[in-house]
Amino acid sequence: MYPKKELAQIVISACIQFKIDTVVISPGSRNAPLTIGFSNHKEIETLSVVDERCAGFFALGIAQQKQKPVAVLCTSGSALLNYYPAIAEAFYSNIPLVIISADRPKHLIDIGDGQTIRQENVFENHILFSANLIENEKYKTRNSQLIGEALQIAVSQKGPVHINVPFDEPLYETVANLNKYHFPHISMSSLDNSNINYKKLADIWNAAEKKMILVGVSYPNAELHKLIDLYAGDDSVLIFTETTSNLHHEKAIDSIDQLIFSLENAEFQDLKPAVLITFGGMIVSKRIKRFLRTYPPEHHWNIDEKKATNTFFCLSEFIQTSPVDFFAHFNSFIKPLKSNYQSKWINFRDQRRAKHTRYFKDLKHSDFKVFEQVLDSIPEPIELQISNSSIIRYAQLFSIKKSINIFCNRGTSGIDGSTSTAIGAAFANKNQTAFITGDLSFFYDSNALWNSYIPVNFRIIIINNSGGGIFKIIPGPATTNAEAYFTTPHCLTGEHLCKMFGFEYQQAYSTASVTKELEGFFEASEKPKILEIFTPSAENDLILKTYFKKIQ
Amino acid sequence: MYPKKELAQIVISACIQFKIDTVVISPGSRNAPLTIGFSNHKEIETLSVVDERCAGFFALGIAQQKQKPVAVLCTSGSALLNYYPAIAEAFYSNIPLVIISADRPKHLIDIGDGQTIRQENVFENHILFSANLIENEKYKTRNSQLIGEALQIAVSQKGPVHINVPFDEPLYETVANLNKYHFPHISMSSLDNSNINYKKLADIWNAAEKKMILVGVSYPNAELHKLIDLYAGDDSVLIFTETTSNLHHEKAIDSIDQLIFSLENAEFQDLKPAVLITFGGMIVSKRIKRFLRTYPPEHHWNIDEKKATNTFFCLSEFIQTSPVDFFAHFNSFIKPLKSNYQSKWINFRDQRRAKHTRYFKDLKHSDFKVFEQVLDSIPEPIELQISNSSIIRYAQLFSIKKSINIFCNRGTSGIDGSTSTAIGAAFANKNQTAFITGDLSFFYDSNALWNSYIPVNFRIIIINNSGGGIFKIIPGPATTNAEAYFTTPHCLTGEHLCKMFGFEYQQAYSTASVTKELEGFFEASEKPKILEIFTPSAENDLILKTYFKKIQ
Repeated sequence: MYPKKELAQIVISACIQFKIDTVVISPGSRNAPLTIGFSNHKEIETLSVVDERCAGFFALGIAQQKQKPVAVLCTSGSALLNYYPAIAEAFYSNIPLVIISADRPKHLIDIGDGQTIRQENVFENHILFSANLIENEKYKTRNSQLIGEALQIAVSQKGPVHINVPFDEPLYETVANLNKYHFPHISMSSLDNSNINYKKLADIWNAAEKKMILVGVSYPNAELHKLIDLYAGDDSVLIFTETTSNLHHEKAIDSIDQLIFSLENAEFQDLKPAVLITFGGMIVSKRIKRFLRTYPPEHHWNIDEKKATNTFFCLSEFIQTSPVDFFAHFNSFIKPLKSNYQSKWINFRDQRRAKHTRYFKDLKHSDFKVFEQVLDSIPEPIELQISNSSIIRYAQLFSIKKSINIFCNRGTSGIDGSTSTAIGAAFANKNQTAFITGDLSFFYDSNALWNSYIPVNFRIIIINNSGGGIFKIIPGPATTNAEAYFTTPHCLTGEHLCKMFGFEYQQAYSTASVTKELEGFFEASEKPKILEIFTPSAENDLILKTYFKKIQ
Repeated sequence: MYPKKELAQIVISACIQFKIDTVVISPGSRNAPLTIGFSNHKEIETLSVVDERCAGFFALGIAQQKQKPVAVLCTSGSALLNYYPAIAEAFYSNIPLVIISADRPKHLIDIGDGQTIRQENVFENHILFSANLIENEKYKTRNSQLIGEALQIAVSQKGPVHINVPFDEPLYETVANLNKYHFPHISMSSLDNSNINYKKLADIWNAAEKKMILVGVSYPNAELHKLIDLYAGDDSVLIFTETTSNLHHEKAIDSIDQLIFSLENAEFQDLKPAVLITFGGMIVSKRIKRFLRTYPPEHHWNIDEKKATNTFFCLSEFIQTSPVDFFAHFNSFIKPLKSNYQSKWINFRDQRRAKHTRYFKDLKHSDFKVFEQVLDSIPEPIELQISNSSIIRYAQLFSIKKSINIFCNRGTSGIDGSTSTAIGAAFANKNQTAFITGDLSFFYDSNALWNSYIPVNFRIIIINNSGGGIFKIIPGPATTNAEAYFTTPHCLTGEHLCKMFGFEYQQAYSTASVTKELEGFFEASEKPKILEIFTPSAENDLILKTYFKKIQ
């Protein structure tokens, strides 16, 4: 059973041809032709999620894991505006999200018809391509071309595209077959790296006694991992990774803030590299940004397939290629150099790590302590999703097991869709997924749980400090006479939501009860589970501040 | 305690000067200068709501009731995108909503800084004005001018405006005083109606034997009400109102669908007016749109201060003035005409009303029956908020008491923020507010309840038919082999949310229990209350279909 409308047939046919196999549908009537077609097509898995904000992030989570485009489909009107937070995240995180919105025909817009807004180009600031279709036989070629282009761009440039599909009534007429349409194949040029002068770059690199590699948000990549190993063996190179880099090495600095907190001018001068290579997405650590902006390296090379990111305002070379491709070539040009740069800072790291361990020994129940307990108890393999704000910042202070892949919505760093993203990722990945979240993030996106596709082995750990913990940690809010507008204190718990949405619910209030509740928490169960850990909001900030004093 | 930043001082000073007295703040650090300033200013009431989607609609509800601008304030990044559904509603409902978003300075955008998106002009399709400020002494005059213009437009053109305020760090420095800044007073021309040829219009009007006045979404307006009375006494005039018109007269047709359902060609020809006057916002009834598009009147005059709405594709005259102003002038030109137009259709209306009453006598428990019970039990005076989709359509089939003011988000007709809007309205109005909602709308906007300002006399009635009831009523979805993607069936109830957010909770499953639970439901209480009425989803559609047969 397929829609009689040719425009709907063309959209569906294009999705099949471009290998889109997952469509998240939100309810509506205007999108009926596409809902009918997608849901009846055996090559497409359709998933139903009512709240478009959640649907957008859920699809994002699936696309994040599958690393291929996932489509969302909604009706006309304000429905599609609810996708916008997920679209912006996809835009900055390079995730291929295909937004398909049904619309009314143009003559029904702005004339008083219901559920009608100005949908064309509505995501302009954060979209790679907007295909504004017209339902009319005479625009058939144009429509096909636009759809083809949109999908091609989503695939090749890895980001969000918007296909706006106006339908006149009747909407529910069906036919037995889906026609095959042909879409212009767009030959995208591949990147020609032959003009990258590796020799010249290597000359600079090989001459420098202090070199730094800083890795932003990255997918786990065994090939890249191997290529980077070479640098870990070079005395003159320091590798800085973050929780979200998914790249590990015993000789890497995997907790930047732990290392560079409280360094003095002379130490920063000493740490400052002559050459800095960066790749991957956003950098979480604010301190490393401040450091490299204040002490800019002579050379900063940023490697990316799409575009340069001049985070430290000192970019000297943008190298447009993939990190794997770059290092595969570059590695044959470089030579290790005797230097005490690496060993000095690795020693320093080890001292701070030791102090870190010591600090935790008798640390009382708090956000920070809970993190240690949770990270220690997480089984392997697992996909770990982390929410934004204080949660990801705490995570940055730990060395996390190699086998754990870590994801966080760092494109826009919003708290608006972390749970939905985690659920999408859990749905798409055959490994177990766990999600660590703060309370505000969790309650913000509570509709995420209104989802029929949550695997029973999915686990959520809420660290509930009764408000925006970040605003207790950063200096400022406490001095304003308006602290409540920052921390937004509340007495909410996840208990009622668990009952509502069919999760098992556990609580913990102390170090002992956290240990107890974590026992068996990740084991097989009939329902997904939430463990909510309550921490003392008035003490968390002091415990973190003391930590930074003690590890000095 | 006020922000040291001059740009923040200017924004706050402008808000004071333009008499903005309510600011809904969502948490964040980038907006700290404004949060500090607004929350410490005694002329401004600041309200804290975490989820920006709800905050936007909550502010919309306040502005709807106060009929003056209300501001929302959020941090940088994806936060402000969550305002978009409320902005679109404000745009199409002519509600002055002032969006103030903090931003990072331009040089930090698209270079890898966290919580940073392209905020300038991001609401372009649905905003009356975007003021993109720059934090720099040398742009002081320009900034003031843009802020002044934005606020002036929000007030005079009644709609959403966006003020984007970039702040560099430090964000938390304060001073003791708020300086006074002067904003260019913009003299807006008032509408000069002297060229409206009332005489010419009256000649057409007075000669016509069939004239219709159709009233869209309107605020209660005693003056207008009185002016329209004249037409109710004219045999040649039919007044059509909707639930959302807030205009009542014994001689008005207040349930359009009840009247025009099942009319035949000849009857429509008979009902077709020679002259149609429309004013107010959106028309809810799809049937009246279809009727007037199929049987266009010779003359369609649309009266509006802002812009013409050519809903029936036959607009002959756009009269740019307020309805009050128009009728105040026009009434002195018109003469009643002997005709059987009004009496014939009023008789017809009365027959259908009688059949309506008869139908309800033994009607079994259902969405439709529940409506009768709820509307009968509502005390006076009350402000009634109604959600979209099937709920507003059911409401259209009843004659609702004159003293009840009715509001519904018909700008975009979305289900995304009805509860938040109702809560904003309840907060702003000294009368009691009740809200009737469907289950999908309610669960969609469940974060609306995460709000500390809900009056204890606020009442919600959820009509829970376990999914999108509208998709059972409209023909189509049941024939598609994909019905679940339309109706999105669920087993959720509001019970757990009530516990979570401190509402009293009552349930009803039958006509008798609805009657029982409604007893005393609206009386004073210590907490706001929700009454959730479960109806049989498999029967609701048949009951409505039978109704339309029986009233023929």
